[in-house]
Amino acid sequence: MAERTATLEGTITALAEQKKYPALRDILVTMNPADVAALFDEIDEHLLPLLFRLLPKDMAAETFVEMEPDPQELLIRGFSDSELKEVVDELYVDDAVDLVEEMPANVVRRILKQADPETRRLINNILQYPDDCAGSLMTTEFVDLLPTMTVADAVKRIKRTGTDKETINICYVIDDGRHLLGTVSIRTLILSEDDEPVAEIMQENVISVGTLTDQEDATALFSKYDLTVLPVVDNENRLVGIITVDDALDVLETETTEDIEIMGGMTPTDKPYLKTSVWETFKARFPWLLLLMISATFTGQIITSFENALAVAAVLTAYIPMLMDTGGNSGSQASVTVIRGISLGDIEFSDYFKVLWKEIRVAVICGVALAAANFVKLMLVDRLLFHNPEVTVTVAAVICLTMVCTILCAKVVGCTLPMLAERLGFDPAVMSSPFITTIVDALSLLIYFRFAVSILRL
Amino acid sequence: MAERTATLEGTITALAEQKKYPALRDILVTMNPADVAALFDEIDEHLLPLLFRLLPKDMAAETFVEMEPDPQELLIRGFSDSELKEVVDELYVDDAVDLVEEMPANVVRRILKQADPETRRLINNILQYPDDCAGSLMTTEFVDLLPTMTVADAVKRIKRTGTDKETINICYVIDDGRHLLGTVSIRTLILSEDDEPVAEIMQENVISVGTLTDQEDATALFSKYDLTVLPVVDNENRLVGIITVDDALDVLETETTEDIEIMGGMTPTDKPYLKTSVWETFKARFPWLLLLMISATFTGQIITSFENALAVAAVLTAYIPMLMDTGGNSGSQASVTVIRGISLGDIEFSDYFKVLWKEIRVAVICGVALAAANFVKLMLVDRLLFHNPEVTVTVAAVICLTMVCTILCAKVVGCTLPMLAERLGFDPAVMSSPFITTIVDALSLLIYFRFAVSILRL
Repeated sequence: MAERTATLEGTITALAEQKKYPALRDILVTMNPADVAALFDEIDEHLLPLLFRLLPKDMAAETFVEMEPDPQELLIRGFSDSELKEVVDELYVDDAVDLVEEMPANVVRRILKQADPETRRLINNILQYPDDCAGSLMTTEFVDLLPTMTVADAVKRIKRTGTDKETINICYVIDDGRHLLGTVSIRTLILSEDDEPVAEIMQENVISVGTLTDQEDATALFSKYDLTVLPVVDNENRLVGIITVDDALDVLETETTEDIEIMGGMTPTDKPYLKTSVWETFKARFPWLLLLMISATFTGQIITSFENALAVAAVLTAYIPMLMDTGGNSGSQASVTVIRGISLGDIEFSDYFKVLWKEIRVAVICGVALAAANFVKLMLVDRLLFHNPEVTVTVAAVICLTMVCTILCAKVVGCTLPMLAERLGFDPAVMSSPFITTIVDALSLLIYFRFAVSILRL
Repeated sequence: MAERTATLEGTITALAEQKKYPALRDILVTMNPADVAALFDEIDEHLLPLLFRLLPKDMAAETFVEMEPDPQELLIRGFSDSELKEVVDELYVDDAVDLVEEMPANVVRRILKQADPETRRLINNILQYPDDCAGSLMTTEFVDLLPTMTVADAVKRIKRTGTDKETINICYVIDDGRHLLGTVSIRTLILSEDDEPVAEIMQENVISVGTLTDQEDATALFSKYDLTVLPVVDNENRLVGIITVDDALDVLETETTEDIEIMGGMTPTDKPYLKTSVWETFKARFPWLLLLMISATFTGQIITSFENALAVAAVLTAYIPMLMDTGGNSGSQASVTVIRGISLGDIEFSDYFKVLWKEIRVAVICGVALAAANFVKLMLVDRLLFHNPEVTVTVAAVICLTMVCTILCAKVVGCTLPMLAERLGFDPAVMSSPFITTIVDALSLLIYFRFAVSILRL
């Protein structure tokens, strides 16, 4: 795909420089707006206004929506007022809102000035909702029907108003007070008799969300109930907008990327990797590394305080990385599983004791199995094969006991912290590998030295 | 949500035991099939057949599809042949295929026997595609139109055949050889004049996938092109099926969970956490812990081989965890970012040098900044505050130089290995935190001791 676009970019640039506009237009109209947008994001800035003007009007708007904010701004600054009006008129309200949110204030003023008063009112309405809630994600362009209409009336209404709606696949039945009564799919309408009243064929148990519902919770309903559209209602059950599945998919993708980035110990960015500058990447990563580095110095303090014990039994030092890593990995496994479970809605705080009990049992089996494997390795490889006389049965016992206890602690910490974070209203993803590792490192060393001191009598 | 279901479960069980069937039925029909399925997954086994039989026929099939395999099997084993036939007849082909894939052989034989011959042929057709490709995900129930039909013909055809189709929102225009020519949305049909030919209003640049396209690639197209349905064609561009967005969403969720589990150092399971047995969880986690534990022993060997150096400068031991952790975290950040970029399609192998160059620059800035912070901390806290005379400027220099080099190595390894894995056809997610950490641990120790030996002349 990327290779094709790369070659295409060359072709387009060449044609543009040779001023072969009809050929250019012919190429562009065969492309999908999303691909045209990807091409426009890459192409040389000075060609952009020219190429954009070659697109047919409806395609221009669709392409514009899919573009990155920087070339969008560039285009708008080059538009005449009437060109800007043409694009804004073609946009769906939710896309117009996204645009307004990305642009600097002076560009926003121009956009709002060109929008017709009704659109301007709708945009301002949506803008009032916080950024991460259902209200900010919705569009207000849906088909509404009255329960008293017949199927024929409904189809007539759709024919009259449908062109400007984001979807007509699901229509919404409301009463005079705009309260949501039910939904009718276009399929049901087509397959019903003309004189049947809408009230008879509508689906009444409608899944809907409030305007202030968190966008992650709203989008989770799409996969749970196999939806393609989700109605948004105010707190008196009045229909104010709809969320379409394409926007839900975008939110899902962005939220997952954010979770993964946080779990990897970074501040999430909303730009693709290759478009993020070195400085932005540095800013997203450095604070976490610094914080984790400072936390890790406590682990160092623990080693320092047992320096004398280590001096007597130097062999113990060699097993520190293995114990720390195994602990960290065990904890990560538990935390990653729990974090994903929470974000999929499989695990809730009320399940805590179920989760804990399960992790304890898994930890004991894993711990004993790994300790056994390790004991065999210590005796056969380190002692017999490498002739290390310091690896006595007692030393091996200290290492293996530490392993069992470390894994137990790691799993308990790994499943507890994300659930606690969720309970306290933080993002559970923060309590993932890097933090769990740091905490478990310290714990494993404390356990190790405790066993060493008491068993080896250091 | 879970709390409501929990109470509901109690109510339902109580009503069932008091044999209050009309009341039970009244409750169930107001619920969404997905919620009924969740309830059925939780409820006592012996009530299941009874409750299921209370559902209206179409709702029964929708509920059945959403249930977990175990209760599904239980129900099928209790069904009479005619009951089974009723459910199978109501299923869409793709759901029937999913069912057949989950059930044991003797149950499958019964299901296929009850399906009508055409459905059986369709099921067997889909079953022949490998599990993770577009062909296995599709359904064959779509509306096909001929280019010569008028809008009125098309609507008539939809009215006649639409009831059994999974979606009528998008109809497919094919020629006599079933080659895909274009698509017409129901919206376009409704908004067009009755006598217009389909060929005039159809959309010709159709995004489609081959039957053997990887399911992850196929589902990525949904968010890229804002699709709700994606046609699947054979290698001669003949239309064989469609994938609907709800199935794409499920794949996306499953694949993301798999990626996250692999990144957390586990074998992916396809069951929700709380439904996985302790033994299954153990089996998914143990092999990785064992493998990583064995790899970590090499890190131990490095310490052993520098035991004499450490005995002379024992202070160096205290900084091992901090250096190892910072290296591991730096590497994880790079690998997590690159793995996510690959799975979103933002990064390809051809971008390797761009990625590498970026990571090197980020590593140098991060490394120098962290080393500087660390130097100040070593001098002010460890030396002045804790009066540790062993922390000399030279020792601090060894630690800080190691830090810069470790971070550089970690970022290079962290971005290289996932891209290499992708290039070699492995899942890049494997090259995530746990493996990167293990490799970087060894590297950081080698760098540390090398600097220590040459600068401190040990």
